[in-house]
Amino acid sequence: MKVILVQDLLKANTDQALQNRSLFDEHRVIVINLISAPGSGKTTLLEKTLALIKDRLYVGVIEGDISTTRDAERIASQAIPVVQINTQGACHLDAQMVAQALLELPLKELDLIFIENVGNLVCPASFDLGEHCKVAVLSVTEGSDKPAKYPEIFLKAHAVVMSKTDLLPYIDFNMEDCVAEMQGINKNLNVFPTSSKMGTGMADWIEWLEKLVQEKRGEVDVPCCNGKSIGSSI
Amino acid sequence: MKVILVQDLLKANTDQALQNRSLFDEHRVIVINLISAPGSGKTTLLEKTLALIKDRLYVGVIEGDISTTRDAERIASQAIPVVQINTQGACHLDAQMVAQALLELPLKELDLIFIENVGNLVCPASFDLGEHCKVAVLSVTEGSDKPAKYPEIFLKAHAVVMSKTDLLPYIDFNMEDCVAEMQGINKNLNVFPTSSKMGTGMADWIEWLEKLVQEKRGEVDVPCCNGKSIGSSI
Repeated sequence: MKVILVQDLLKANTDQALQNRSLFDEHRVIVINLISAPGSGKTTLLEKTLALIKDRLYVGVIEGDISTTRDAERIASQAIPVVQINTQGACHLDAQMVAQALLELPLKELDLIFIENVGNLVCPASFDLGEHCKVAVLSVTEGSDKPAKYPEIFLKAHAVVMSKTDLLPYIDFNMEDCVAEMQGINKNLNVFPTSSKMGTGMADWIEWLEKLVQEKRGEVDVPCCNGKSIGSSI
Repeated sequence: MKVILVQDLLKANTDQALQNRSLFDEHRVIVINLISAPGSGKTTLLEKTLALIKDRLYVGVIEGDISTTRDAERIASQAIPVVQINTQGACHLDAQMVAQALLELPLKELDLIFIENVGNLVCPASFDLGEHCKVAVLSVTEGSDKPAKYPEIFLKAHAVVMSKTDLLPYIDFNMEDCVAEMQGINKNLNVFPTSSKMGTGMADWIEWLEKLVQEKRGEVDVPCCNGKSIGSSI
């Protein structure tokens, strides 16, 4: 009987993540790991983001879901290179799954890759995929107490997109308290309140992404990620 | 070095869950394991539910959170016996944590216990706590595609509370499609569309809970849980 130990799996994940990151750096491609609870609007944010930047940047997407290929189909309809990973029950993506998916993407040509993780605000925060930045998506409908209740992702993220702000008039949500809680956990966190539906707040988010790409290309020297350069921030 | 294997942990969990269930059955108390994504409104549903039934049933609550005691404080303000479990990073409750919490509850006197699991639509579905019924909470703001994307909890749940229906006028959500998807996965699923804020739909949910308690007491013989009696349904 072969017994696989948890610590072996974690070590293997870290090793593979380092290899993924080397590959990204070699191709000067920026990689974002999008993490949120189910239904926070990651895929819709991605659709709107791609529509706004695909004429200026060449972007690829890796979609992680327990089952279905629905998210990848939504992205593919924009003529974006996309790979769907079905985890078949696993609650997070791991670096090995991402390494497999990378074989299907035109890495040499890409400026930016989004990895949309499985909808889960807890477990994906613990698994390095080799990305340069983790970005959390928090829907305002989830409530302003979530950063204190799920601190790990807010500690590790470089940015938080606060989604569905068009619903603010209809819910009890204190934006000031929520941002204060997040920045209490991680004072360098970039926070982008957005509504994918109405398009509000998207300009700042897009600008931040473009600066990351420019920094990776060596065109600017902007400390975007937690005050450190991107290469050394993770 | 002591090495703890995953299969040992799962076996230990199942053994402890059986002991928990025996204890519940001995005291004729019904136990509900509430599972949802973060921010779906489990605690608010619980607050409203307790306000409506606490005069007729004696209810206890176990609150599971990665950190903070906020949810337990909200419940305790209604003079309900409540125990907070902080999982300190773990993404789900397990049967051993629940066994510890039970030492702090007046089991002999209780009719009903709610266990509010960690906000996570994936991992808690795999861990038996000894409960009689799993109930999923799905906020309509999460989108109608969630059952197909997170099938395990919808397969294992006895009921789904669809929360935040007061927001339906402001979002794109197809209730018919969502219910059809859920019942495609589990045709015996009881579905309760509710708004904790407005109080709509709460009567049917409360009636279902009261029938569970009556069945456990032997007062009625109603096949509430997936067409099977409660005792044999899990």
